[in-house]
Amino acid sequence: MSNHVYKVVEIVGTSSKSIEDAIQKGISRAGSSLRHIGWFEVVGTRGHVEDDHVVHYQVTMKVGFRMESDG
Amino acid sequence: MSNHVYKVVEIVGTSSKSIEDAIQKGISRAGSSLRHIGWFEVVGTRGHVEDDHVVHYQVTMKVGFRMESDG
Amino acid sequence: MSNHVYKVVEIVGTSSKSIEDAIQKGISRAGSSLRHIGWFEVVGTRGHVEDDHVVHYQVTMKVGFRMESDG
Amino acid sequence: MSNHVYKVVEIVGTSSKSIEDAIQKGISRAGSSLRHIGWFEVVGTRGHVEDDHVVHYQVTMKVGFRMESDG
Amino acid sequence: MSNHVYKVVEIVGTSSKSIEDAIQKGISRAGSSLRHIGWFEVVGTRGHVEDDHVVHYQVTMKVGFRMESDG
Amino acid sequence: MSNHVYKVVEIVGTSSKSIEDAIQKGISRAGSSLRHIGWFEVVGTRGHVEDDHVVHYQVTMKVGFRMESDG
Amino acid sequence: MSNHVYKVVEIVGTSSKSIEDAIQKGISRAGSSLRHIGWFEVVGTRGHVEDDHVVHYQVTMKVGFRMESDG
Amino acid sequence: MSNHVYKVVEIVGTSSKSIEDAIQKGISRAGSSLRHIGWFEVVGTRGHVEDDHVVHYQVTMKVGFRMESDG
Amino acid sequence: MSNHVYKVVEIVGTSSKSIEDAIQKGISRAGSSLRHIGWFEVVGTRGHVEDDHVVHYQVTMKVGFRMESDG
Amino acid sequence: MSNHVYKVVEIVGTSSKSIEDAIQKGISRAGSSLRHIGWFEVVGTRGHVEDDHVVHYQVTMKVGFRMESDG
Amino acid sequence: MSNHVYKVVEIVGTSSKSIEDAIQKGISRAGSSLRHIGWFEVVGTRGHVEDDHVVHYQVTMKVGFRMESDG
Amino acid sequence: MSNHVYKVVEIVGTSSKSIEDAIQKGISRAGSSLRHIGWFEVVGTRGHVEDDHVVHYQVTMKVGFRMESDG
Repeated sequence: MSNHVYKVVEIVGTSSKSIEDAIQKGISRAGSSLRHIGWFEVVGTRGHVEDDHVVHYQVTMKVGFRMESDG
Repeated sequence: MSNHVYKVVEIVGTSSKSIEDAIQKGISRAGSSLRHIGWFEVVGTRGHVEDDHVVHYQVTMKVGFRMESDG
Repeated sequence: MSNHVYKVVEIVGTSSKSIEDAIQKGISRAGSSLRHIGWFEVVGTRGHVEDDHVVHYQVTMKVGFRMESDG
Repeated sequence: MSNHVYKVVEIVGTSSKSIEDAIQKGISRAGSSLRHIGWFEVVGTRGHVEDDHVVHYQVTMKVGFRMESDG
Repeated sequence: MSNHVYKVVEIVGTSSKSIEDAIQKGISRAGSSLRHIGWFEVVGTRGHVEDDHVVHYQVTMKVGFRMESDG
Repeated sequence: MSNHVYKVVEIVGTSSKSIEDAIQKGISRAGSSLRHIGWFEVVGTRGHVEDDHVVHYQVTMKVGFRMESDG
Repeated sequence: MSNHVYKVVEIVGTSSKSIEDAIQKGISRAGSSLRHIGWFEVVGTRGHVEDDHVVHYQVTMKVGFRMESDG
Repeated sequence: MSNHVYKVVEIVGTSSKSIEDAIQKGISRAGSSLRHIGWFEVVGTRGHVEDDHVVHYQVTMKVGFRMESDG
Repeated sequence: MSNHVYKVVEIVGTSSKSIEDAIQKGISRAGSSLRHIGWFEVVGTRGHVEDDHVVHYQVTMKVGFRMESDG
Repeated sequence: MSNHVYKVVEIVGTSSKSIEDAIQKGISRAGSSLRHIGWFEVVGTRGHVEDDHVVHYQVTMKVGFRMESDG
Repeated sequence: MSNHVYKVVEIVGTSSKSIEDAIQKGISRAGSSLRHIGWFEVVGTRGHVEDDHVVHYQVTMKVGFRMESDG
Repeated sequence: MSNHVYKVVEIVGTSSKSIEDAIQKGISRAGSSLRHIGWFEVVGTRGHVEDDHVVHYQVTMKVGFRMESDG
């Protein structure tokens, strides 16, 4: 981490399967437009309920990645 | 969400299996007395430990449901 | 407030008009089933957006009311 | 705590005597309509003042109780 | 919300008129560069004062929108 | 903001009309004894309810002003 | 609370006896220079320890009072 | 406090009598294994309830003590 | 919980598999040096990402255990 | 700290040089009108930026001082 | 601040020298891709340690800039 | 970070010179009894004031280190 600068973006991953799957799905999608993702931090776990069943986990997370240097 | 009013109650679901199972068990039980549950938000994840093993996950969550209109 | 006990419930009022209207709509609906509502406290202000316009304000609030004494 | 589900409600107990008395008064009143109260957690301590004397302590607390099973 | 991923950005809308107008102005401007904005959440309400009058409300909010799928 | 020092005080403005009016009323009153008020930040929005109607908005806010230099 | 404006100040009351006594001592002292104190809210409870005994409770609280109108 | 280093540990004191007694009991026990305890800060107040009576106050607190210098 | 005193320590459990596994791994390791662990509380969920995949969940938690009595 | 009462005020110190200098400048200015300042606590660190350079650090802090006894 | 809209992004600046240097380095890098940066707010200060020495300060901050108007 | 477990302790470093020096002094002292310290996170910055001058910075921080494996 020698004098690098990092950016942190907030995303919401969703999954009908599990909290871990929602995290991975969010990171996979974010990774298609961001390079160098290095870590995540969960900041909220919610979900959608229908007929008393969880139909989607919605995990809000901060995702950090290294900004590439200029020039 | 056209001019509806929602109520939010706090429950603790427990499970010896997983965090997701504790969430679902809490919602299932809440759903037996509340209609129209639409969402949940996790506000705390704790657990009970015996002999260095997690014997129960205890997930505190807010559960939101639409209040039926009067008359 | 002489030795009374109060209960606090959480509701979400919605309105397409304003934050104040969402608060009032929530309290009116809560008041149809609760007596003695005395105060509210806003704990979150969100909204739904369509075509870059706010179509509903959603105000989450705590609503306090005096519990009637027993017998 | 084997797979039970708990509900958490928020109340405000008041007392002119002490914080502990406000807690107990709140729980006593809540217990007249709720069964199986198992714990409380203080979330706020306020009070009313007249002529520079505390005339009432107002203790806001979460109160948890086990939901009875169905059927 | 079937397995979509959402992004959340933070903006500050300002208005000399009202809090609601500051929210709408912020979303209108954000919508000129982001598609699919679905919700906002207020995270701070401040303002600028001159000669004891509020000259601008400054509403900081999180704005969420669906990320379009790849390819 | 060249090496100035600012002081921040907490006030509660009230109004039967709107949140914005409560903010302005609080600042007007504070301005009668403080000079150089420059900004405010809302830290709480509550209200008093009678017969299921909001009779007063109570907006708690921090108000910042520049301390005049000595001598 | 008809359109009044309130001010909130932060004080620390101390007592070797109890938390309640520290609150009352703080309010008594504040009341010697402020008129119309109406409420307090505890924001922190600390204490000083010597030889494994609590020698002073230090209760930080917000104290609210009505600002007198001008002229 | 001249260039000393302090350590902070978290403990839960319990008492069937009062919040103050729970604090003192926690500090007495901590003091049997730690030297130089200088302060505490309450971070949570909970309790156990049976038959609608508080049977134990559980006060979570941070306890600070000076680390002795080396060699 | 009759007048016992508890200690709370903070640990970070890691796992490449799941959040639950990270919790269990942390408790297993803590249990090798602490006796009487009774509960945990999650205070943060982060993770390490490589090539857009979560390679480790890192769950920060508070772990509580009963202090044995002296002598 | 024998039964004294303390007051806590919030100030913002600014400096173009460093965070420590902003703290000291704020305390120096506050000390010109308050006696017995004993401690500070940083509650926010912001700054003003021009042409991608920090031109002022703005450190918001609580400053505590002993209230002199009456007469 | 006349009806402008601002955007806030989160970055982490790092430096082996000081907290202030980490802030400046983060802003310099952010400024290479963002115009009109006007302010920052520190939201976290961490660091990396090797052989009991701080080898990098890592300062997480929100950075605000004015969005240019359209067309 | 392959399946390691980390412990986090809270310390207060003090220095009459700077915030960075207080951090380093705290870590140096902690390192004399703990091995493998890897990171710190600042959780509070306070200070002691005499005659309107900061005489000590007191930086409260969490310090994380890898727990050595058993056996």
